[in-house]
Amino acid sequence: MADVLADPVVRLRLDLGYDGTDFAGWARQPGLRTVQAVLEEALARALRRPDPVTVVVAGRTDAGVHARAQVAHVDVPAGTSVEDLAGLPRRLAGLLPPDVRVRSVQPAPAGFDARFAALWRRYVYRVCDEPAGPDPLHRREVLAYGRPLDLGRLRAASAPLVGLHDFAAFCRRRAGATTVRTLLELAWARGGDGTVEATVRADAFCHSMVRSLVGALLPVGSGTRPSGWPAEILAGGVRPSSVHVAPAHGLTLEEVAYPPEAELAAQAAAARRRREPVD
Amino acid sequence: MADVLADPVVRLRLDLGYDGTDFAGWARQPGLRTVQAVLEEALARALRRPDPVTVVVAGRTDAGVHARAQVAHVDVPAGTSVEDLAGLPRRLAGLLPPDVRVRSVQPAPAGFDARFAALWRRYVYRVCDEPAGPDPLHRREVLAYGRPLDLGRLRAASAPLVGLHDFAAFCRRRAGATTVRTLLELAWARGGDGTVEATVRADAFCHSMVRSLVGALLPVGSGTRPSGWPAEILAGGVRPSSVHVAPAHGLTLEEVAYPPEAELAAQAAAARRRREPVD
Repeated sequence: MADVLADPVVRLRLDLGYDGTDFAGWARQPGLRTVQAVLEEALARALRRPDPVTVVVAGRTDAGVHARAQVAHVDVPAGTSVEDLAGLPRRLAGLLPPDVRVRSVQPAPAGFDARFAALWRRYVYRVCDEPAGPDPLHRREVLAYGRPLDLGRLRAASAPLVGLHDFAAFCRRRAGATTVRTLLELAWARGGDGTVEATVRADAFCHSMVRSLVGALLPVGSGTRPSGWPAEILAGGVRPSSVHVAPAHGLTLEEVAYPPEAELAAQAAAARRRREPVD
Repeated sequence: MADVLADPVVRLRLDLGYDGTDFAGWARQPGLRTVQAVLEEALARALRRPDPVTVVVAGRTDAGVHARAQVAHVDVPAGTSVEDLAGLPRRLAGLLPPDVRVRSVQPAPAGFDARFAALWRRYVYRVCDEPAGPDPLHRREVLAYGRPLDLGRLRAASAPLVGLHDFAAFCRRRAGATTVRTLLELAWARGGDGTVEATVRADAFCHSMVRSLVGALLPVGSGTRPSGWPAEILAGGVRPSSVHVAPAHGLTLEEVAYPPEAELAAQAAAARRRREPVD
């Protein structure tokens, strides 16, 4: 123990993706298959570490939620054999199941913290509103929605939600945690294959926030609810039982942004001061 | 029986897609789960037909091969309740498993034959040559290839294969069937996510032709074989054991093209005269 503590620590940045279908989410839970547990076990073997390693992630995704560009960090003693960092993705590819891939492993810049130094997270929620349902090859990442969606209505309802608000009405409550967030973007577009995509970007999200927002907006898009309904819910501060949290499998974490290296430490310190569950 | 035969027949065009992962290919085989069997059963129920229906398809894909825009036709007696054709995709969506989707059903124009009237079929073969392997969300449609691919080498080796040739060296032999085909396009590109895509377009393909071509080209792209190797194999007329047929899961049928309505019947008659296994 003393030797390990005496060693200086090297922080590694990991860029990874996963198909969330068969995972009980990111965070370790006893007896469940989670991305964190699978990744930490593979990393310990790839780095030939006798002790478990702990991975810190930018977005702690829920059960069934996917990630295309998740970012994480892991601290390893400087003595760890990491001289062949470039070979780690290939080594990890052999150790990880095919539903998790680590695309790159590199030494993190000074002040880097995958969770606290992030500027914003970008999620995309995908919905197919055609009667036949989604392209079978993409059915694990696209929600089948039975009614046609109107992009104009979705955009009108989304506009008043953007900005700095208390999103308590769209969050699962946690004692002592703030639900104030800056929603930077909530945009709707129809892709070439007809799939409707909601891009949702914020400094940080509270629990089930994207899926609650989408769950309140889809009935507006289909004409079941008026355009002002989601903004009224936001103002009310409490999620009514009539808002259904949209299913997990339509949601994918697509991007995590960090400030330039010189501002990493300040960004992480500011996020930690807010003591928020930032992900 | 007499009544059915006396009825005029209505031909319907179906546009469909499927995830080939869990199918033993398109064509019916006793005791196996095939797209044809699953689709014909759902169609008979959706059309409320007491007898089995027979679906004719543009591209009879092998086990594990996918289709995003497959085209098929089915003949039903004019008396069949098809007045609500527009509702058929939704009805079929409820009857079909999620790995097959029928996007549209419409009355076929005069002279239409999904198989014989097709001008060309376009397939895409997808390969990821990054050490970490493919995006987990697309791993069922992208081959993991361990060595970096050079697009310049792939293009140089592909160019002499385009055109009218006897592709016997890239086909599984069938007694009495010609292996002469017109390869209209064999193009290589790298997509935004790093995936290498081979677009292969021909009037028709013989059995395992796309996968044999890709299997001969990948070792050229990785530098294992010289650029002239695939053209030498073509000229030799026999597939050497050193050519490996590329795995099925990287292959997707992306498009089937038909001539204008006035030329449909002539196109079908010409294809039938050649007595080729056109798909």
